[in-house]
Amino acid sequence: MQKKIDGVRIIGVDADDTLWVNETYYREAEDAFAELLTPYETQNQIGQELFKLEMKNLPIYGYGVKGFVLSMVEMALVLSNNNVSNASIAKILQLGKDILNKPVELLDGVETVLETLAKNYKLILVTKGDLLDQESKLERSNLAHYFHHVEILSDKKTANYSSLLQRLDIQAQEFLMIGNSLKSDILPLVALNAHAIHVPFHTTWLHEQVSDEDCKDYDYSTVNSLVEVLKFLG
Amino acid sequence: MQKKIDGVRIIGVDADDTLWVNETYYREAEDAFAELLTPYETQNQIGQELFKLEMKNLPIYGYGVKGFVLSMVEMALVLSNNNVSNASIAKILQLGKDILNKPVELLDGVETVLETLAKNYKLILVTKGDLLDQESKLERSNLAHYFHHVEILSDKKTANYSSLLQRLDIQAQEFLMIGNSLKSDILPLVALNAHAIHVPFHTTWLHEQVSDEDCKDYDYSTVNSLVEVLKFLG
Repeated sequence: MQKKIDGVRIIGVDADDTLWVNETYYREAEDAFAELLTPYETQNQIGQELFKLEMKNLPIYGYGVKGFVLSMVEMALVLSNNNVSNASIAKILQLGKDILNKPVELLDGVETVLETLAKNYKLILVTKGDLLDQESKLERSNLAHYFHHVEILSDKKTANYSSLLQRLDIQAQEFLMIGNSLKSDILPLVALNAHAIHVPFHTTWLHEQVSDEDCKDYDYSTVNSLVEVLKFLG
Repeated sequence: MQKKIDGVRIIGVDADDTLWVNETYYREAEDAFAELLTPYETQNQIGQELFKLEMKNLPIYGYGVKGFVLSMVEMALVLSNNNVSNASIAKILQLGKDILNKPVELLDGVETVLETLAKNYKLILVTKGDLLDQESKLERSNLAHYFHHVEILSDKKTANYSSLLQRLDIQAQEFLMIGNSLKSDILPLVALNAHAIHVPFHTTWLHEQVSDEDCKDYDYSTVNSLVEVLKFLG
């Protein structure tokens, strides 16, 4: 028998890789990008260098597809020593457009879970990334009507959540966050004394990865799939 | 004697080219971009083609610097018939980073006006563009403390404002919007029966331009500089 989480009034739900597929498309684009640059470097090295450049550019580009594509273009110039073909640059731009134009693919059980939760709780979508891209995905998902409020953040650190809860006049103890990223959806909330349930996705971006050691003092639950979340709620 | 605007409780203020310089930096980048492509086309043609491409990409890239840079890279490939140098592509990426890293340059009277208005009204910053870039500019402007709420929209059409007013529980008649763009800051608000004061900036992006004919049935005031806004308020 699953121990219930008591006192929850509002539930925050992450979007990318919690409600719909996202990271998979980035990985496919990274593979295609590495393929384009095989004349210049090994796939492993290309992946590592791209990640380093994305982290370097993060303070000005932020999260999302557009910054990812700009970093890929920059990386192609650098790794090829300014020898990459214009055709390859064009393909990199197209990789970005392909991600932005992907149909929204809902994960298992999403509609059932949201429909059930929406009956008893106020649901808030809490995501990060490019503003228009996230709004567009939500609209195309046909899930928008389940959410009382939609919040697209530039980052998902403790300070961002703290400000969000304050702005929406929500006490931490009455807030539960559900998401796939320990770093972005779980640990910051537990740090605020809110509740959190981790629903892992099979693929996690390196930037979102945290060690077991980082999590050991945090109190949260992990489930294998979104539907299991219902067991925690009355 | 200026006729006062009565019944206002909340004032929305646009950011780019209303509080701080923005369009000027885009124009400088466009000039530098055209310079890079002079071997392939006339400056005039380059400007026109770039605008067309930006409009074509707007539904997926949205507003802001990152989409602008991605469109410039794409345009360089197309206009050069895939002959543009990698060095030129690198310079285009740098044009974008330069905009993102520009110091925030406040327009005349901004601090006086916000300080005065904040005493009697709730101020809301209402802007569009890249989420992180706008947040970063607001932080660097040292103006954040004047605003009760900050709203970064993916677009500024009537529906976006209508949804914003509803979400914040604001009646149109008690809302005044101040901004430099007739298309984005003024006409949509007048259409909602809210108040609006137009403070033109010397440079307006083609996409934001509207004809006199488009405005003729709209009731709003135009002032020469932001400080004149104070004359309309009690």
